[in-house]
Amino acid sequence: MKHVVDMSWTDKLAFTAEIDGHNLILDADIDTGGSDLGMRPKKLMLASLAGCTGIDVVSILNKMKVFPDSFNVIVEGDVSEEHPKRYTSMKVIYRFKGKDLPIDKIQKAITLSQTKYCGVSAFYQQVLDVKTEIEILP
Amino acid sequence: MKHVVDMSWTDKLAFTAEIDGHNLILDADIDTGGSDLGMRPKKLMLASLAGCTGIDVVSILNKMKVFPDSFNVIVEGDVSEEHPKRYTSMKVIYRFKGKDLPIDKIQKAITLSQTKYCGVSAFYQQVLDVKTEIEILP
Repeated sequence: MKHVVDMSWTDKLAFTAEIDGHNLILDADIDTGGSDLGMRPKKLMLASLAGCTGIDVVSILNKMKVFPDSFNVIVEGDVSEEHPKRYTSMKVIYRFKGKDLPIDKIQKAITLSQTKYCGVSAFYQQVLDVKTEIEILP
Repeated sequence: MKHVVDMSWTDKLAFTAEIDGHNLILDADIDTGGSDLGMRPKKLMLASLAGCTGIDVVSILNKMKVFPDSFNVIVEGDVSEEHPKRYTSMKVIYRFKGKDLPIDKIQKAITLSQTKYCGVSAFYQQVLDVKTEIEILP
């Protein structure tokens, strides 16, 4: 299967694309000559990982009849100082809120995503170790 | 430097994040249990590459006094059939429209982005060969 993203330059350093029928705007910040019409491109690498593994984990937990009150996926990436400035480490924090959430099922869902289903994580793991952390708050 | 993206689960399989002050919504499609409130996560890997190298190339060309009438960055990615479904090849097509555009300067700007500045491409090149193509239309 092939995926295609077509980004059009719109103004100064801003670009826009329609992806799955939804608009995305990327831009540089004002200090580097952009207009801040949209987010910076590199962080989308982290958003891609967060969304990919987040959707996996919610899907798997639902099948296990586990329903948290809230769920956040926080992805942290360290960026190299020298050009080309790229991610050199990544950590995914899975933060759940809810009563009596079963840590074993949550751990299993995350492991399944990180080892079997999430293609974004599988790609990044060819470059670096994607660390994971679980936080369960009442 | 550290980048952080915090995605909140909002409903069914949908997630949202604020990145650089701009909202992003990711979701699965309806066939796989989502509501299509936003785009699929994996394609953001391609959008990240398109925006990163696109901003580089426009910036460099502007310094070279090259101003195309239009400019698109099209990123194609082949996805593996088996889980985890991940990109196995990528191609970036730089499509310019304009009169008397200097191919040598355009080639130089793209090479600088792909080899020196674009941290997304540098990351992906650790996994696969990021192919490039240039199209110049009148």
